[in-house]
Amino acid sequence: MADIKALVFDVFGTVVDWREGVARDLRAFFDLHGASGVDAYAVADAWRKRYQPAMEECRSGRRPFTRLDVLHRENLDAVLLEAGLDLTAIAADELDELNRAWHRLDPWPDAIDGLKRLKTRYIVAPLSNGNVALLLNMARRAGLPWDAILGAEVANAYKPQPAAYLRTAGILGLQPGEVCLVAAHNSDLAAARACGLQTAFVLRPREHGPKQATDLKPEGPWDIVASDFLDLATRLGC
Amino acid sequence: MADIKALVFDVFGTVVDWREGVARDLRAFFDLHGASGVDAYAVADAWRKRYQPAMEECRSGRRPFTRLDVLHRENLDAVLLEAGLDLTAIAADELDELNRAWHRLDPWPDAIDGLKRLKTRYIVAPLSNGNVALLLNMARRAGLPWDAILGAEVANAYKPQPAAYLRTAGILGLQPGEVCLVAAHNSDLAAARACGLQTAFVLRPREHGPKQATDLKPEGPWDIVASDFLDLATRLGC
Repeated sequence: MADIKALVFDVFGTVVDWREGVARDLRAFFDLHGASGVDAYAVADAWRKRYQPAMEECRSGRRPFTRLDVLHRENLDAVLLEAGLDLTAIAADELDELNRAWHRLDPWPDAIDGLKRLKTRYIVAPLSNGNVALLLNMARRAGLPWDAILGAEVANAYKPQPAAYLRTAGILGLQPGEVCLVAAHNSDLAAARACGLQTAFVLRPREHGPKQATDLKPEGPWDIVASDFLDLATRLGC
Repeated sequence: MADIKALVFDVFGTVVDWREGVARDLRAFFDLHGASGVDAYAVADAWRKRYQPAMEECRSGRRPFTRLDVLHRENLDAVLLEAGLDLTAIAADELDELNRAWHRLDPWPDAIDGLKRLKTRYIVAPLSNGNVALLLNMARRAGLPWDAILGAEVANAYKPQPAAYLRTAGILGLQPGEVCLVAAHNSDLAAARACGLQTAFVLRPREHGPKQATDLKPEGPWDIVASDFLDLATRLGC
């Protein structure tokens, strides 16, 4: 831990509560379009479920790297059709605006104070599969004090591809072992560790709602395990 | 001006005083290595003079895109040899540290207060040929409140190549006309304007020292002309 110079963060689920934020904007949209009976949480979960397969098209090389705003927009059309909405009756501008629900997610209650403490001693930046505009708009709205906006779009590779972690360390001018990934997801941490990064698990037991069954405990030899960002700051001496 | 959503900034000369900062670190280095007679300003100017030709190798395609820290380091060796230093007697670590003089430049006196005012209303980010680590370390040291670190390394193209401006707008999720380049250099503004960006000229009459002969006035139909960043903030209603 003495060598860490930068903390890079998974964002969806680790820094922000995507499920509540997306469901909130979906609910308002359904109310506006006479579809109040649709379960906004179920559609939020379905939208998120299409996230990994869409990125996998890019990771596999079947599709060139495509920023997440575009993948989210394609997946939004699909889940709204599944939910029974008539997309021909809705303006593209309105769907674009709804797609930016991912730009308007709220941080977990400890995130901003924790990041401010961590920033006093370490470089702090997202290492997210979200694109730069998404993360930047999110940061301005929520007050997330990033030193830079890094991640898949800057590295031109989606996590868990090694290039996403290794290019991010290179862009920071650091060795992989000088960078620590902070994430609520064991799979993300395993991929980062395989690239030589240090790892910090933060518990987010409500990311998937009250019935969450995954990532409820650390499942690897992570360098740090913390209950939230304030606990992480304390463990890192901030 | 009503449509501007992001202000992107040239950095060397526009935000920070590269000549004083580089000369300061060179002078300390020369004193340490028994070369106090060498003119630090002259070496700073010679180092900067090699900046455009080095980038031109990348712009022309003769060399793949190479980040500025690497180009600066190569050019440092060349100018120190020209100044008569024996590089075989100096550790590589020491030269790497001196090379990071470009990470330790001080902002012009109005820059931070101006950026803080501008940030209340607009996205603010560098659009510099400096690499991400350089700009990030500079920002942390000086307190520059960027929303993101953009520029040549993220766009994979050196200004004044059109891709540097157009990809930056695309990464921000904006049309070129929603982005305004702020620069003290008429040539940079001309290239940005040709790509459809809005343009703001800020006068920096001492960038090249007391005998500066260039960029002492606006030389194109720039959308805004300001005497410094505080004046720019006032003109933009911040």
